[in-house]
Formats: sequence, C-alpha cells, structure tokens
Amino acid sequence: MKTVKHIDIKKNITVDELIKEMETSGVMGAGAVAKAVDIFEKAIKDKECKIFFGMAGAMVPGGMKNIIMDIVKNKLIHVFVTTGANLTHDLVEGLGHHHYQGKANVDDDKLNKEGLYRMYDSYMKNNVYEDLEDFFEKNFDELKNCKSITEFLKVLGKLSPENTILNSCYKNNLPIFCPSLADSGIGLIIWGRIAQGKETKVNAFEDLKDIIDLAWTSKKNAVIYLGGGVPKNYIQQAMQVSPKKASYGIQVTMDRPEPGGSSGAPLKEGISWRKMEKDANFVDVICDVTIALPLIYAALKSRL
Amino acid sequence: MKTVKHIDIKKNITVDELIKEMETSGVMGAGAVAKAVDIFEKAIKDKECKIFFGMAGAMVPGGMKNIIMDIVKNKLIHVFVTTGANLTHDLVEGLGHHHYQGKANVDDDKLNKEGLYRMYDSYMKNNVYEDLEDFFEKNFDELKNCKSITEFLKVLGKLSPENTILNSCYKNNLPIFCPSLADSGIGLIIWGRIAQGKETKVNAFEDLKDIIDLAWTSKKNAVIYLGGGVPKNYIQQAMQVSPKKASYGIQVTMDRPEPGGSSGAPLKEGISWRKMEKDANFVDVICDVTIALPLIYAALKSRL
Amino acid sequence: MKTVKHIDIKKNITVDELIKEMETSGVMGAGAVAKAVDIFEKAIKDKECKIFFGMAGAMVPGGMKNIIMDIVKNKLIHVFVTTGANLTHDLVEGLGHHHYQGKANVDDDKLNKEGLYRMYDSYMKNNVYEDLEDFFEKNFDELKNCKSITEFLKVLGKLSPENTILNSCYKNNLPIFCPSLADSGIGLIIWGRIAQGKETKVNAFEDLKDIIDLAWTSKKNAVIYLGGGVPKNYIQQAMQVSPKKASYGIQVTMDRPEPGGSSGAPLKEGISWRKMEKDANFVDVICDVTIALPLIYAALKSRL
Amino acid sequence: MKTVKHIDIKKNITVDELIKEMETSGVMGAGAVAKAVDIFEKAIKDKECKIFFGMAGAMVPGGMKNIIMDIVKNKLIHVFVTTGANLTHDLVEGLGHHHYQGKANVDDDKLNKEGLYRMYDSYMKNNVYEDLEDFFEKNFDELKNCKSITEFLKVLGKLSPENTILNSCYKNNLPIFCPSLADSGIGLIIWGRIAQGKETKVNAFEDLKDIIDLAWTSKKNAVIYLGGGVPKNYIQQAMQVSPKKASYGIQVTMDRPEPGGSSGAPLKEGISWRKMEKDANFVDVICDVTIALPLIYAALKSRL
Repeated sequence: MKTVKHIDIKKNITVDELIKEMETSGVMGAGAVAKAVDIFEKAIKDKECKIFFGMAGAMVPGGMKNIIMDIVKNKLIHVFVTTGANLTHDLVEGLGHHHYQGKANVDDDKLNKEGLYRMYDSYMKNNVYEDLEDFFEKNFDELKNCKSITEFLKVLGKLSPENTILNSCYKNNLPIFCPSLADSGIGLIIWGRIAQGKETKVNAFEDLKDIIDLAWTSKKNAVIYLGGGVPKNYIQQAMQVSPKKASYGIQVTMDRPEPGGSSGAPLKEGISWRKMEKDANFVDVICDVTIALPLIYAALKSRL
Repeated sequence: MKTVKHIDIKKNITVDELIKEMETSGVMGAGAVAKAVDIFEKAIKDKECKIFFGMAGAMVPGGMKNIIMDIVKNKLIHVFVTTGANLTHDLVEGLGHHHYQGKANVDDDKLNKEGLYRMYDSYMKNNVYEDLEDFFEKNFDELKNCKSITEFLKVLGKLSPENTILNSCYKNNLPIFCPSLADSGIGLIIWGRIAQGKETKVNAFEDLKDIIDLAWTSKKNAVIYLGGGVPKNYIQQAMQVSPKKASYGIQVTMDRPEPGGSSGAPLKEGISWRKMEKDANFVDVICDVTIALPLIYAALKSRL
Repeated sequence: MKTVKHIDIKKNITVDELIKEMETSGVMGAGAVAKAVDIFEKAIKDKECKIFFGMAGAMVPGGMKNIIMDIVKNKLIHVFVTTGANLTHDLVEGLGHHHYQGKANVDDDKLNKEGLYRMYDSYMKNNVYEDLEDFFEKNFDELKNCKSITEFLKVLGKLSPENTILNSCYKNNLPIFCPSLADSGIGLIIWGRIAQGKETKVNAFEDLKDIIDLAWTSKKNAVIYLGGGVPKNYIQQAMQVSPKKASYGIQVTMDRPEPGGSSGAPLKEGISWRKMEKDANFVDVICDVTIALPLIYAALKSRL
Repeated sequence: MKTVKHIDIKKNITVDELIKEMETSGVMGAGAVAKAVDIFEKAIKDKECKIFFGMAGAMVPGGMKNIIMDIVKNKLIHVFVTTGANLTHDLVEGLGHHHYQGKANVDDDKLNKEGLYRMYDSYMKNNVYEDLEDFFEKNFDELKNCKSITEFLKVLGKLSPENTILNSCYKNNLPIFCPSLADSGIGLIIWGRIAQGKETKVNAFEDLKDIIDLAWTSKKNAVIYLGGGVPKNYIQQAMQVSPKKASYGIQVTMDRPEPGGSSGAPLKEGISWRKMEKDANFVDVICDVTIALPLIYAALKSRL
C-alpha cells in the first residue's frame, strides 16, 4: 500500500506540480483529479486510442470555451458530443456577444426586465436571439439539406465565426454529435424557419451509424465526460454495441448515483453493460467542471 | 407568519393526511413535498391549464411505471416529454421482461457475466435486446415513414403491448416528445435497421412546432419535472417562446444548482428567461423521485 | 432475484400501505425507505436489542418535534444523542415560542432588522434568548453541580416544560448525550453565567463511560442516524469499543461520501472499523430527514 | 457588468496564474474559488482582522496536514477550531503511523480482517490505538489537570511530536478549540483512563469565554470553514454574540442547504443572525476540500 503523502505547496507552484502532489496524496477528491490527468495523458499517448469527449452543462457561460477550443486545436480528442445549449452559447459569443458575471441570489423578474437571462451566476442578454435569427436566416439554405445532425453541425461549423468551438471543430475535422439539437436555442431558431414554411432534411437517427462506426473501428476507446446527460449516454451506447469498449474513462460530475439516472452513475456501472472494459483505467471526479477541467487541462498541457 | 406546526403521526395515517401534516409544518423538504401536491392539484383543477410533464431518470427500472400510467389514464397531464431510456425500459417490460432488485455495491464484471445490466440497484437481463430487435423488425415498415419523433412514438405506442406507458399515452391521445430518442436502446435498434440498409423519414426538428403549438394555444401552462435533462429543457424552451409562460411549476431533482446546468437550476431561474411567469406558483423538491413521486401522487389521488 | 414490482397507488392509501408498495418495488430511494421501516421494526421487536438514536440537523425548526416526542413516549429507543442546537430550539418552543414558515430566498439583512433568525426557510424570533436567559438564571443553581453533560441534560429535562423533547426524555428515563453542548444557544447562555463569575462542574469526558456502558451491556445494538455530525460519530465510537457492534442500522442523510467525512460515510464503511457487524441489517437512505422520517415513522407506528 | 472572460491555459501555468484566469472568468465554481483566494488574501493583509479557521472532515487522512501546518507556521490564522477526529489522525501520524491510499469500493469485512480502518478511500491500521494508549498513559498526569479543552489541547500540543498540527499550533501560540473532543479517538483513550479510575478536570463549557473573548476583542473578524459541523458552528456563535461580526468569510463544503442544517447553510444565512456583517465579503465554494484547499492555498502563498 502507498502512504498518503501530504500535499506540499511551494511558492509559485505550477498546476502540474500541484497535481503531482495530489497524485502522491492519492485519496479523495485530490487523488481523483490527479488520476484524471494521468488517465487523460495515457489515453492521448496511446496512439491506438480514440477519445470520445462528452460535454453537458453550461460550459460556455461558465468560461470554459477557450479550454475546449485548445483541446480541439491540439487534436487531443477524436469525437465531440455535446448539447445544443453549449453550441448555442458558443455561436452567440461567435456573433460578438458575451456572457456576464452576475449573481445567483437575485430578483429574476428584475433581471428579465433588464433584458438578461440567467444561468446560475452567469448572464446573457436576451437580444442575442436577433443575431442568431439573422445568422440562420442568411445561412439556412446551406443548412437545410444536411441529412444528419452531425452533418448539419459540420456545415454550421464551417459557417461559424472563428473563435467558436463550432468552427474549431470544423477546421480540425472533429465530428460533433448532438442528438438533442432540437432542444436548444439553435433548435428554436430552426423552428422559426419551419414556422415560416421552410423545411430541413435532418434525420433524427442518421448519425447513429457515424458515431458507432467511429467506436467500432478503433483499436481502443477512451471516454471523457464533463457532466452527464445525453452527451455521456450517446457515447456510452456507442461503446456498448462496439467490439471495443472504453479502456480509459474520466467522468467529472456533481450528480449523485442513488436516484439511478445515467448522469450520476459511476463509470464502474458501465462494466455491467460492457460499455467499459472490466480492467479499464477510469476515475469519477466529483467536482464542479469549472474547477476540475482547468486544473486537469493545465497539468495535461504541461506534460504534452 | 404561519408557525411551524409539528407533524403529528397517528396510527394508520393515510398519505393524504400525512401530506396535510407536512403542509402545516410547511418548511424544508416536507413543506416542499406538500406544496408540490397543492400545486399539482391546483393545476389539474384549473380547467384553463395545460400540464407539461417532463420525466428523465430511470423511472421504469425504479418502479414508477404504474404511477405514470395511472396519471396518463386519469388524463391528468396533457403533454409528456421523456427520454429514450425510459421508453426503452417501458417497452422491454411490455414485451414480458422485468427489472430486478439488486445491489449497488457489486462486482459489475460478475454481473455482466451473469447477463445483467445495472442501473444503480436495479438490474435488467441483457437478452431483452433480442425481443426488442424482433419487435422492431416486425414493425419497422409502419414506423419508418413517420415524419417526426412524436409521430414515431404515437405509432410505437399503438403497436406497443398494453401495460406500457407508450400504449397508455396512445390510447389516451397524449403526445409523447423525446428529442433525443436516438440516444437510447430504441435508437440502437433503429441503428441496427439502418445498418441493414433501411431508412427512416424521422426529421430531427419536425415536432418542435407541435410542442410549441401546444404551449402557444394554452390559456395557462403548468410544468412538472421529474429530473432534469432534455425533458425539462424541451418544455422550458417551449414556455420561453410561447405567449403564456408556466403559471404552475413542480420540479423534483437531486441535482445541485451551483455547477450551472439546466438540470439543477431552480425553477425561479426560469423567471429571468420568462419560461415561468413572475408570479407563478412553483416549488423545487430536492428529493429522489422514487420517494417523492409516490408520496405526491398518493395524496393527489385522494383529493381528486 | 425479486422483480421490481411497480408501485400501485389506490385512493386513500395509508402510509404503511404505500411503504409496502415501496418494499415490493425494492430499488433506489423508495426501496431504501421501505427497508428502513423494516429494519426499525425488526430492531424494536428484537427484545435483546438496544437502539441508539442520533439526531443532527435542524429537526425542531423543521417540524419534527412531535415525531421525536412520540418515539420517546412509546419507548422505541434507548439512547438519544443530539446536538445543542436541537435542544435549544426544543427548549425555546417549550418556553412558549414558535418557529415560523419563511423563505430561503430572502434578504437576510431585512430579516435581521425584523428580529428574525433564519434556518433555511424556517425562522425564529431573536427575542427567544431573553426567555432562555431567564430560564437558566432561575435554574442555574440546580444545573451547575452536574458532573456530566448527560446528567446536566437530565436535570434540564426535569426542569423543562412539558411538550419538550427534553422533558419527554426525562419522564421516560431516556438518557440524552450531547458532547458538543457548549456549541449551541444553551452553551451561549451558560457562557453568560460564567461571564458573571458563576461556575459549572460539567466535565467534558465524564459521560463517555455512560454511553459506552450502555453499548457494552447490550446483547445487541441498533443505530439510527438522522443526519451525521457528532451524534452519529459519538454512537459509532461507542459501537467501536463495545464487544457488541451494531446489528441493525439506519442512516438518513443528504451528505455525500466522496469528501471523506463521517457525516456522508455509508454505514457499510463502519464494518471496516467494526462499528457495524459484518452481517448487520442496515440501509442508507439518501433523503431529506423531514421527508423520510415522517414516512418511516408513520409506517412503523401502524405496525406496532 | 464584467464579461465572462474564458480561462486560458498556457503551458506550465502556475496555480496563481490559473486562479487569476478563474477570477476573470468569474462565474460558477471557478469564480468562487478565485474569490476565496482574494478574500483570504484581503483578510490576511487587513492587519486589524482576526481569522477564525474551522476545519471538519477527514483532512489528515485526506492529505491536507502539511498545508494546515504551513498555514499555522506562517501565522496566517488566529484561532483554530477542529474536530477530535482530525486531531486524533494528526497525533497518530505524529507517533509514526501513516494513512494509506485505498479504494472506496471494497469489502469492508476483508479490510477489517487485514487490520485496516477505512475513511472513504484512505485507510489507517487499527494498531495505531496501541501507540495512542501508550502516549496518553505516559502523559496523562500532565493532561488531567487542564481546566478546559483548549488548555488540554495546548498541553497536548506541547507534548506532541513535531510534524503535527497539534505541535505546530502550540509552537505558534495558536489556540485550538474542539468542543466535541470526547467524540473522537482521543476521547476514547481518555475514556480508557477514566475506566481505570483516573479523572480529568476538563470542564465542558470553560473555553467558551476564551473563544468569545477572542472574537470580542477584535477590530474585525474573518471566518474560514473547511466543512461544517461543530467547528463552523462554534465560530459562528462566537461571532453572533460579539460586537464585531465576520467581515470576511469563506466556506468550502459539499453539503446542501435544503435540509436546513448548519453544515450546508450558505454564509449569507448568517447575516440574519448577525454572525456575518451585512456588507461582508464572503463566498461559498461548493467543492471537495481536498481539491479546493490546495488550489486556494497555492495561489495565496504566491501572493504573500
């Protein structure tokens, strides 16, 4: 057994040095964060391994956009699955808008009258929808003929301004999956076009074969989940049906396992389903993603 | 101010009597559960009100199927939004299978070798997929031409055995929405058909107009969320764009608000977005749905 | 394996009938609540068993006082361990004050100016301290010579008005332990006497032998924890050093295990310490106590 | 309003630089961690301010000992309140023992047979009690005449080996409060002496006046809470009765507010009690302490 070596902090310690201290302490949340860095590094350096990255939550309002874009540009992941909300917030910023530092304890009616939408303590102006409308109105012809959501998001990525996750994925040839795209601000904008009598050809099931092919053709797979929801589950089921299950796994979440939903389920549960190899190298990090992700990525970047 | 009157328990107390005790105590979790019953009752008795019901989580593996079916058969709700997982588990049981009482602290590799999938402490045999395959193989021609997910689920409901939520909704003319249906066991079965060269006509965005029309045409709306995820958000955004926002709201969840995601966001946050009327009657119940829902529904049923 | 039988709700169902439905569903939170009732019932009916009951949290502000008093009067438990806060709120009500139904989202400065203290959404007037002062001033001579906290609380119980947990315990000869009594409103009042030059003879360690004797002399022990904190741990360590460890266990908590503290630790962890027998009958109920306790006790009362 | 500036990670970024990035993002968990560093720094640099530091949880088994000792040696805090468990684990290590890196998903009966106690995924050998016994047997005469717990802990600190929090506090003249010391391994060892007929003079209420004097005589107070429980509450009530309430506040916890207990209560609630000044500078960090504390302290150390 390894002893719990207490974490030592020296002045001007780097994040990577701190994570190494956490690795030698090795227990509880700190140990889990350190293990996540180690697993992410191993998965990247395992050249046979394809990394599936699922991202739920409010990552763009939460200040995580540049980290995600850096991960994409450095080609550290191979499949990106997210929610329509994250892509909407990404595009909103790409169109020149911002999110704002607010408060969670606030009069929401007053906020509304000031034209602000709230996501915990991050605000967004409600006039962003006008620019979203214009953007989609202008580009709808190019989008409407896409056959699948992943194709739709590829075209959307091409059309999106630089400095968006969408465009970064496009440029780096990273496929984006988002099975519940209809459930988002982008979905609402598309509804607006449909309400005007326009049509799309986007099939609801079409990209299932794409994500499963990606999993199926790997020699090894890794799964990284920031939050749960559809992004996690969509990757999990691709693992389930593929001959190669996840050999590496990282999950960062604040959800509890006891109510039985997928978002709070520990990665270990996936072994019963053979979404995860029985001897996989995996860790559950019970932490707010906006704290854990910068820590993990800062250490990782120093090691690559 | 009302005093906190301590809860009195008499022998053989009914659930409704207990909830009335919780109403007079009026604080913390007990107060919230009692308020949820009151709001649900008021929303039902408000004949101008359309009730949107969102259900995430693992409700069928968690033993909640008959309650949901009872709610449907008694026509207490008007719009049903759920996850593909719940519909898959529902159909699996309809095809004659069961879920089983297991343990959460278990060797998942051993479970897998015994042919069992785990959802916390509920198990399902992995051979259910064979019957799902047969069912969809047999019925695919009727399903593949559906234009939207909600139409697909209507046909699926017609084809489903009695004693399923799917069939109950069909018989009671209750529309089911499930924007992420691809992300489920049913999605995987459809992928299997597609992999054989078959096609579906199910459009990813098509039913947005249906749910928004349902919200738009109400005099009043109510929202009830069991868990968060896509079901909650899909209803929330229909409220956002409709002239009538939610006048009543109930949310039962164990997720935290601080990480900023929609699933843990208190209903109050929706006021900033005008998903919720500023003077709406609403409550957040921080509780495992499998505890709170039977309690709430038992009291409600006694009152109707 | 037992199947998950879905919960059926009939009109005017009693709580005990509902709990039996939860027992046949048998999984997730509902299954845990039902198991807690069963274990509590078995521990009571096991005439060789001594039941140690630990209660943290804000149970009196939360409306649980009468349930606790009913448990005490029906002699269902044998040792009571709690916090100074609960005893302070109990005595405050005994002196004629109330708690009030308030809101959690509130301007706390405004509340203060209105003379109100807040515990989540339960309020207490700040003038209660005056009556507490008078009560202790009048009775200090009788209290100051007590040698241990448990003796102090026995005398305090004798002096306390009827309709308090303190007095109920006294009348039913139920010992109260409260190792951190100094850490409470009662502690502050005693500090006031000490500041005036008075003294107490209450030894900080004296009642350790009393609680350990109580555990040591049992043929069997049961532990019931409402919340964690000192009440849980004080019982746990009595189990640890006694020849008889807990044979039955119930824990109701919302705390998480991952940060490593005792309050969130599952009962199972106690097996490594031999605080719990390895084949003990125990359950962790992840639920707000104000929801779970009334449910559990209502079913239990119907069965006794 | 400030915009949410997305966090940028450069190679070999220091922790302090990362925290500054989190400050410019400014929202959700990352924003809260950054704010905690800022408040801690301001409280230290405010030379009129006395810092009360409360520490619950399993900080020594969790690898935090050296950080706490560094804080003590650098004289950054003025009052230290903790649990008996933390002091016991501290002394155990001082006597030459270790904690070990283990697993949370484990057979606890097997662990017990291997002589290991478990705290989540940190283990301790059960033979540590023998050395604790010897230590207290040898030193009991010097300890037994202490009049208060804080005096007892001062003497214990003097007697403790170097490389303990206890001894560091002693050498740096930092008072330790621990109202529930009886509720710990140290308590059990004292019980062993009492069972042999020995006595202590430690009064349960005696040090209330010491901690309140410390709060009362400040020009300004700051409160820092790692976890809740008795350490938090004991400081909170000292603030309540003192003329100067907390002007600065940091709380790191994973407990929820809704069940109403003190451990999960946001600092804001203290304003209603006037434990906190209405215009105090404070933050709640919802995070595992073993992740947040190293981050916060690393940044802080770089700034001092």
